[in-house]
Amino acid sequence: MEGKEEDVKLGANKYRETQPIGTAAQSQDDSKDYKEPPPAPLIEPGELTSWSFYRAGIAEFVATFLFLYITVLTVMGVFKDPTKCTTVGIQGIAWAFGGMIFALVYCTAGISGGHINPAVTFGLFLARKLSLPRALFYMVMQTLGAICGAGVVKGFYGDRYDQLGGGANSVNPGYTKGDGLGAEIVGTFVLVYTVFSATDAKRNARDSHVPILAPLPIGFAVFLVHLATIPITGTGINPARSLGAAIIFNKERSWDHHWIFWVGPFIGAALAALYHQVVIRAIPFKSK
Amino acid sequence: MEGKEEDVKLGANKYRETQPIGTAAQSQDDSKDYKEPPPAPLIEPGELTSWSFYRAGIAEFVATFLFLYITVLTVMGVFKDPTKCTTVGIQGIAWAFGGMIFALVYCTAGISGGHINPAVTFGLFLARKLSLPRALFYMVMQTLGAICGAGVVKGFYGDRYDQLGGGANSVNPGYTKGDGLGAEIVGTFVLVYTVFSATDAKRNARDSHVPILAPLPIGFAVFLVHLATIPITGTGINPARSLGAAIIFNKERSWDHHWIFWVGPFIGAALAALYHQVVIRAIPFKSK
Amino acid sequence: MEGKEEDVKLGANKYRETQPIGTAAQSQDDSKDYKEPPPAPLIEPGELTSWSFYRAGIAEFVATFLFLYITVLTVMGVFKDPTKCTTVGIQGIAWAFGGMIFALVYCTAGISGGHINPAVTFGLFLARKLSLPRALFYMVMQTLGAICGAGVVKGFYGDRYDQLGGGANSVNPGYTKGDGLGAEIVGTFVLVYTVFSATDAKRNARDSHVPILAPLPIGFAVFLVHLATIPITGTGINPARSLGAAIIFNKERSWDHHWIFWVGPFIGAALAALYHQVVIRAIPFKSK
Amino acid sequence: MEGKEEDVKLGANKYRETQPIGTAAQSQDDSKDYKEPPPAPLIEPGELTSWSFYRAGIAEFVATFLFLYITVLTVMGVFKDPTKCTTVGIQGIAWAFGGMIFALVYCTAGISGGHINPAVTFGLFLARKLSLPRALFYMVMQTLGAICGAGVVKGFYGDRYDQLGGGANSVNPGYTKGDGLGAEIVGTFVLVYTVFSATDAKRNARDSHVPILAPLPIGFAVFLVHLATIPITGTGINPARSLGAAIIFNKERSWDHHWIFWVGPFIGAALAALYHQVVIRAIPFKSK
Repeated sequence: MEGKEEDVKLGANKYRETQPIGTAAQSQDDSKDYKEPPPAPLIEPGELTSWSFYRAGIAEFVATFLFLYITVLTVMGVFKDPTKCTTVGIQGIAWAFGGMIFALVYCTAGISGGHINPAVTFGLFLARKLSLPRALFYMVMQTLGAICGAGVVKGFYGDRYDQLGGGANSVNPGYTKGDGLGAEIVGTFVLVYTVFSATDAKRNARDSHVPILAPLPIGFAVFLVHLATIPITGTGINPARSLGAAIIFNKERSWDHHWIFWVGPFIGAALAALYHQVVIRAIPFKSK
Repeated sequence: MEGKEEDVKLGANKYRETQPIGTAAQSQDDSKDYKEPPPAPLIEPGELTSWSFYRAGIAEFVATFLFLYITVLTVMGVFKDPTKCTTVGIQGIAWAFGGMIFALVYCTAGISGGHINPAVTFGLFLARKLSLPRALFYMVMQTLGAICGAGVVKGFYGDRYDQLGGGANSVNPGYTKGDGLGAEIVGTFVLVYTVFSATDAKRNARDSHVPILAPLPIGFAVFLVHLATIPITGTGINPARSLGAAIIFNKERSWDHHWIFWVGPFIGAALAALYHQVVIRAIPFKSK
Repeated sequence: MEGKEEDVKLGANKYRETQPIGTAAQSQDDSKDYKEPPPAPLIEPGELTSWSFYRAGIAEFVATFLFLYITVLTVMGVFKDPTKCTTVGIQGIAWAFGGMIFALVYCTAGISGGHINPAVTFGLFLARKLSLPRALFYMVMQTLGAICGAGVVKGFYGDRYDQLGGGANSVNPGYTKGDGLGAEIVGTFVLVYTVFSATDAKRNARDSHVPILAPLPIGFAVFLVHLATIPITGTGINPARSLGAAIIFNKERSWDHHWIFWVGPFIGAALAALYHQVVIRAIPFKSK
Repeated sequence: MEGKEEDVKLGANKYRETQPIGTAAQSQDDSKDYKEPPPAPLIEPGELTSWSFYRAGIAEFVATFLFLYITVLTVMGVFKDPTKCTTVGIQGIAWAFGGMIFALVYCTAGISGGHINPAVTFGLFLARKLSLPRALFYMVMQTLGAICGAGVVKGFYGDRYDQLGGGANSVNPGYTKGDGLGAEIVGTFVLVYTVFSATDAKRNARDSHVPILAPLPIGFAVFLVHLATIPITGTGINPARSLGAAIIFNKERSWDHHWIFWVGPFIGAALAALYHQVVIRAIPFKSK
């Protein structure tokens, strides 16, 4: 199927696909070879006996641990000061989330793919980029890592951790649950859409900036969504991050809205997979 | 015409064009081959029957939708707090605009060219980088996307959207309309000049950093213009962004100055096209 | 030993190691050649007679001098204003530390490897990436550079230097020494883990973004750890930086906790070396 | 002379020069070919008849114009609000200066070398990277561009321009002239040292990140020096920027200290040229 990805374009028009902005001007030759990787099998039992499978899970655990550790610690430091002036500020929180994703995707992309987020794993699974056991294993390891990361921060802050909100997500006063759900859906769409753009085999083969910059726009996507939606939900767009903080915080407030931080990101990831695979790459409409 | 782009340089001097700053020191050989793409035809009717044409329009719609959604949401969050201290601040707004352009140019450059801005489309059209129907189609899709993006933010904020100004552009008190128009002209010049530098076929062939970094300086240009001109006009330099916010805000104040946010960006884009094509590349003076 | 690095993977599984996130999708071919550099000898006396050895030491001295100069000057400027509002703020301090590491790693990587930090030197020494004399020489030069850098700042500020804390590290009130030690360990782990990811010979051969972006995520790692742990210890994760500031500040407060800023970073660096070499690359388990 | 650049290294030691940090691990082979460009002649009269010479001057004029326009406008916007809270803040000013240098070096490197700063031109002239007439021509064009850029900002702000200080440099109260001179010397050293690292022909040939990232660390160097020295002098490290703002501001205060912003940057640039050419590359000690 993917082997014939060119069909639609070649059949339907004779014009080059790229329009200028220089970023796409590297190669005008649309017939340049690229190889869409074959879809991952749904279940590949042999995978479970390979060391690289478990190593990838460990890498996801460690990365999500470090992600929660740095980000929740930053949140605590900012919330300690009511005026925020003697802290890195709310903008600093957004940098912590986005910057960590940039650094961690850079570090773990070659080991596990660098998901660090069940919503990203879910979106890539829908696009058949990894098997079902691997997807589930990643999600479990991400969640465990998140719980441990938030737990270490609680170890530093003790009772103050609970007073300062523990970095847990909830819909803030003045917004409806629908607002929160919408913010999570669109926010995760931005992130997973960027991930798909960075993983597009066709563009990797043609535009030199796509494979080289990849971790940077993914990290920026997380930063940008935090700039926009911290006032609404504190920004989840990562169910492991939301669950880890909620379990360690463990107050009613953080559980009441918790479903939003799973349903929203999963819907957003599914929409991004749909948009990229169906609208942009038109995979279902290709001739066999 | 472009095929003979070397004429001026070869005829007029025997010195290499690049002066050192390392960024240009990659290749000292000025005669290295590069291929200026042929100018786009003014009208290419067959284009209208190709799927990639419509897909590019959809990509522009989605990108401009996400651009307005994230940026106007960030503006609302900052304006909610009069002291700004518990928000990402005015600097956070500048990051939202610039960062989104970086991420979205990265994501859509290979699909539509990643304009996300009628002024960019206009500048590239003047340089004959795309056909007239494509330019008009892009502008319509960008404007529709901007209206929808601002509309979703209004859905979150309701009445407060209007109280907080709706992210709409206008010339602030203490500045004349001439100041606002000038700020829009020079600001758009910075952006479109960066776009032309990133798309320069000659430099793409010679300087390795040009094609690879491309989306980053384009995003930074938007960030920098916002740092400088938010106090003056709130910064437009993108007529779709200004129109989308104005239509959803729909107060007299946003319509009074609205022409500035079309005339200014279009003049700035035209000047940037002129500067790059005539002064830097001297295309009109080349021998046939 | 390293020459047979493929053993584990080839023997244990037939699946490609990389999972998609695009950043790893460049090459699906895991057998692509790469050459693990041989381990550095423990002592290589001839090294001491080469000019490049001393030049590398000079480069480490100058880089650590500039690092302390810029960062401590930034700290002084921020601490002068109790409200922080008319300064670059605490977030600006984090940018100064992370940004300088980015710029200095970029500048000195090709001369000395760009360590600028005894903990990084220690971690790379444990992984046998440099000889013992070189490691010790680097640490001495880094420390001397740090003392001189902080000294120049004291020259600018005189008595005010001591009143403003001199940029020295200590565990802040409200945190235990154990908190401070833990923060230094995990913080240095984040930094040295990023350094190892950037130096991984296997990934350098396969993922195009790894060698090209390298200085950027290393700088970001320093920035991110500062965002998180400035409230706890002021953030050391670099014993030369902590010692240089402590010697020039030279107050009891800065010496009481000083051991934390050597023990913590060295433990963190050792854990990062262990994690990368044993868990990720499984070097000890390879067949000879 | 440069053709035998390998002499020192080959004669003096048999060890590879690079130490690991991944950024230098790309190629272990030190004998990899690279070509040091020949030194520019002191005077090359034919240069004056080439179009590319004048085009480079125009590019320097336009770039320095845009540099002053955006940065002084940002300074004005921040200084308007005494509390700074409703502005992009002092950190935003640092971003404006550094970000503009990043974008402008990116845009003009291939046309003029992207100096945008007489101190950079002076440093590169000392290293014989450009001829004397070109160096003088660049400095004149940079200064004219800077005057025009500051002048446009004065056109926007009128009388308020003078009240807000006009973005002019001077040594702030609480610092001696010696402090200011020292801050300018070391600050310009950081910038010009980064420029030399980015232009090093040997490293360009060996480390893939050097030519590709080049404009980014140069911009960051400017950003970082501003973080550190805005409290001391407002940060010059660019005589054209200081002169342009001083001429348009034209108050006694800005002229009293003006010599510091020429002498300091030129000394810093000379030291950086000395450090790179003599210590790092040992060019004077090479056998003919």
